[in-house]
Amino acid sequence: MTMMPNWLDKRAYLTPNLEAIVLKNGESYTFKQLQNDSKAYATFLSQQGFKKGDHIAVLSSNCYEFAVVVHALHYIGAVAFLLNTRLTTGELVFQLEDGEVSGFIYHPTYENTAKELLNHHPFSIFSTNLKKPEEIIEFPSEINLEDVSHILYTSGTTGHPKGVQLTYGNHYWSATSSALNLGIDEKDRWLLSLPMFHVGGLSILYRSVIYGMPVHLHEKFDLEAIHHDIMEGGVTIVSVVTVMLEQLMERLGSDLYPDSFRCMLLGGGPAPKVLLEQCQQKQVPVYQSYGMTETASQFCTLDKGSMLSKIGSSGKPLFPGQLKIVENNQECSVNEVGEIEVKGPNVTKGYWKRPEANDKTFQDGWLKTGDLGYLDEDGFLYVVDRRKDLIISGGENVYPAEIESIFKGLEGIEDVGVVGVKDERWGEVPVAFVVKKNNAVTAETILHDASQYLAKYKVPKKVYFLEELPRNASRKLQRHKLLELLEGGGSS
Amino acid sequence: MTMMPNWLDKRAYLTPNLEAIVLKNGESYTFKQLQNDSKAYATFLSQQGFKKGDHIAVLSSNCYEFAVVVHALHYIGAVAFLLNTRLTTGELVFQLEDGEVSGFIYHPTYENTAKELLNHHPFSIFSTNLKKPEEIIEFPSEINLEDVSHILYTSGTTGHPKGVQLTYGNHYWSATSSALNLGIDEKDRWLLSLPMFHVGGLSILYRSVIYGMPVHLHEKFDLEAIHHDIMEGGVTIVSVVTVMLEQLMERLGSDLYPDSFRCMLLGGGPAPKVLLEQCQQKQVPVYQSYGMTETASQFCTLDKGSMLSKIGSSGKPLFPGQLKIVENNQECSVNEVGEIEVKGPNVTKGYWKRPEANDKTFQDGWLKTGDLGYLDEDGFLYVVDRRKDLIISGGENVYPAEIESIFKGLEGIEDVGVVGVKDERWGEVPVAFVVKKNNAVTAETILHDASQYLAKYKVPKKVYFLEELPRNASRKLQRHKLLELLEGGGSS
Repeated sequence: MTMMPNWLDKRAYLTPNLEAIVLKNGESYTFKQLQNDSKAYATFLSQQGFKKGDHIAVLSSNCYEFAVVVHALHYIGAVAFLLNTRLTTGELVFQLEDGEVSGFIYHPTYENTAKELLNHHPFSIFSTNLKKPEEIIEFPSEINLEDVSHILYTSGTTGHPKGVQLTYGNHYWSATSSALNLGIDEKDRWLLSLPMFHVGGLSILYRSVIYGMPVHLHEKFDLEAIHHDIMEGGVTIVSVVTVMLEQLMERLGSDLYPDSFRCMLLGGGPAPKVLLEQCQQKQVPVYQSYGMTETASQFCTLDKGSMLSKIGSSGKPLFPGQLKIVENNQECSVNEVGEIEVKGPNVTKGYWKRPEANDKTFQDGWLKTGDLGYLDEDGFLYVVDRRKDLIISGGENVYPAEIESIFKGLEGIEDVGVVGVKDERWGEVPVAFVVKKNNAVTAETILHDASQYLAKYKVPKKVYFLEELPRNASRKLQRHKLLELLEGGGSS
Repeated sequence: MTMMPNWLDKRAYLTPNLEAIVLKNGESYTFKQLQNDSKAYATFLSQQGFKKGDHIAVLSSNCYEFAVVVHALHYIGAVAFLLNTRLTTGELVFQLEDGEVSGFIYHPTYENTAKELLNHHPFSIFSTNLKKPEEIIEFPSEINLEDVSHILYTSGTTGHPKGVQLTYGNHYWSATSSALNLGIDEKDRWLLSLPMFHVGGLSILYRSVIYGMPVHLHEKFDLEAIHHDIMEGGVTIVSVVTVMLEQLMERLGSDLYPDSFRCMLLGGGPAPKVLLEQCQQKQVPVYQSYGMTETASQFCTLDKGSMLSKIGSSGKPLFPGQLKIVENNQECSVNEVGEIEVKGPNVTKGYWKRPEANDKTFQDGWLKTGDLGYLDEDGFLYVVDRRKDLIISGGENVYPAEIESIFKGLEGIEDVGVVGVKDERWGEVPVAFVVKKNNAVTAETILHDASQYLAKYKVPKKVYFLEELPRNASRKLQRHKLLELLEGGGSS
């Protein structure tokens, strides 16, 4: 059991007047203000009867109030369910029920969604608006690093979303490990435009409070605003996914970033080599990384010294992490492709209420990622294929199995198979192959129906009709044959 | 249980060709070389029959081979007893017996001492000379942060030296906590001239391997060599005690250090205000700190932003640490002096085989330091008095009780009391007040006899004779009255 002070309390004690959060409009909040607002919100939650261990969901886009709520939930010791704002009602209800959520905090933008959810699942609901209780109550001064702070849902290959349990320790180890690779400079300012409901955005909030570093918090990827914050706002590090980096490089044109800019932390799937070379030419240091919700963000990151010589690699596991490549229960040799397995103090202790998935996924502390890759002769990781069938679209994970299970429930559909295809803008997008029950259904009706149940980024961009899907003897879908059909040209 | 890769293995994998250790003569060793040499030495130890959990002592001044041995002991999982080279045979034998040490590794300089110790305590002895076994064996790839890596002796107020157990976790948390305060810059080079058998020196070795940072390893404080390494050698951080800092400032004269020089980490007792102001004038950033063997080095350190406004303070506890000031079991208010208590993952889990001392010293994870201090209105720590009676002489801890217990065993001495007095060069030095049994003894005979049993820095600089010592009703020595006598002038 490792106890330490509540992070925000400690940070507000160490550097109360340092900027914690800077908004796009220039408004900024110190750590002391963030602490006061978070304790006020926590007092309010406590007055509503919430207590340690309660499951509380948050539905919000990036904003100061979201950060306040995240810290408020730590004060009361609740487990936070950060919901993807792009999900449909059905997808959200699944998480709320599966997660046994009893409280729901929504940004006013999502008031209608919140009220609709209330028809499906009982809980108390509150807006993220800052609270001003008459008196701030006392909260425990310590946190236990082994306590679960978050349950974040990820779909995985089975099509049933699973809640990844992350502890305070997972976040702390992730933050300190990242620092050992990227360094810590007192001038650092980290731009956060990735959604905070994903671990890639959330982890920046923790680095801020643990390092004592201002975060430039953007609601979303606004190209002009981000470009401006790098050129003029003193931002030194930006977390990006490929599609964002491409746009930023185009916007940069023949200019150069200021010398103080020191890191593009690139996550969320593979990047085209041509883009990385372009960054090189523009002297933009890109740190390619490999990570997932289960590893509380980056697990591997390319170090500065190897950026140019190992283009396309995701680097080596950060200091406390271990990684191996396994095929048929044997560790692979150099350059041999196998499943990536990881172990370390930033790795989740398991999925919420999924003993079977946990048995399959974890062994002796090792997490089987399902991703394929190899290590070169110097021990650098190259990811060759994400979790079997996983589609990464604009940084969001899209699982074919999840889409297929929705499609199978739609009227007039006999069978369906989904694969990802390359897309200039999003990296990849899903497309569906459908066997109809009757001729009444069209691509349009199917996509219209599907969008009732699936977040927009999961809805296939195209529907192809087939007489029969390619399945092997045991009726397993042969996705590679679908891809071959596409290369040969299908009928939309 | 937190497992992570062996640190040197991980570092040699991440940055094999980076400089790990640079010697005064310019010779340098990469992390890969350090790993190879350490594994070779560990193979040798293993071939001698040493294994996980064995207690092995090391007697050496700072040198490359000492670093190799430290890492070699981690590979075999032994517990390292790093011995103070300035101790007498009797003092060393006490530690070897108390520590149940079965192996002894000595630098060739100390061969005679090693052989003499063998007359008093049985163990296998080996020199630190690098070994070249025919084949390097395999060692466990992981360490458990809860395992004890070192037992380092400290005397404390009772006069009986106690072994402080430090775990891998204590060192790791210390290294990462220091980084969160001082930052990590890829250009960092840390100069190590403090003895590596003390935690202040040893901890730099771990920062090196955890951060991936070259250490400039000096055998001892050689003013010219250190000055040169700062001015010309690229050193950016130096760990010092007051007496070293004074000499460095005098040597610097009216020059300035290079801009890249960024930190004098000052430990080992209070520093005179005039010195800190002088550093300020010369633009030398001094980070005053407070720590002890029990906290695996720094526990509090003044941050850069407060260096000028809080001169004389030791700062605030590093990120994961907690500190409180206690008097009569009550937490003190602002500016009220009391005993300093600390808690955190870098704090020892207890003394080796000292259940009574542990009961007295530890409560609910809090360590009672015995030091006195207060927190100002901004929460900055000011240490007003070190562990009751503790004398800090040139950075070494000197305990009056230990000297008194030796004096009481000397011929012709009836009673004795020891106190520390200010000294221009060493900060403080011990002096003794003696009640003779007969007139045959003189100051000279006493000091000659005492030096057989006490390390030189512990031998009192003066002996004063008294008819009787000031003791209270319960016969407790009243040290403050001895000090008053000194101010009034005593008879030497």
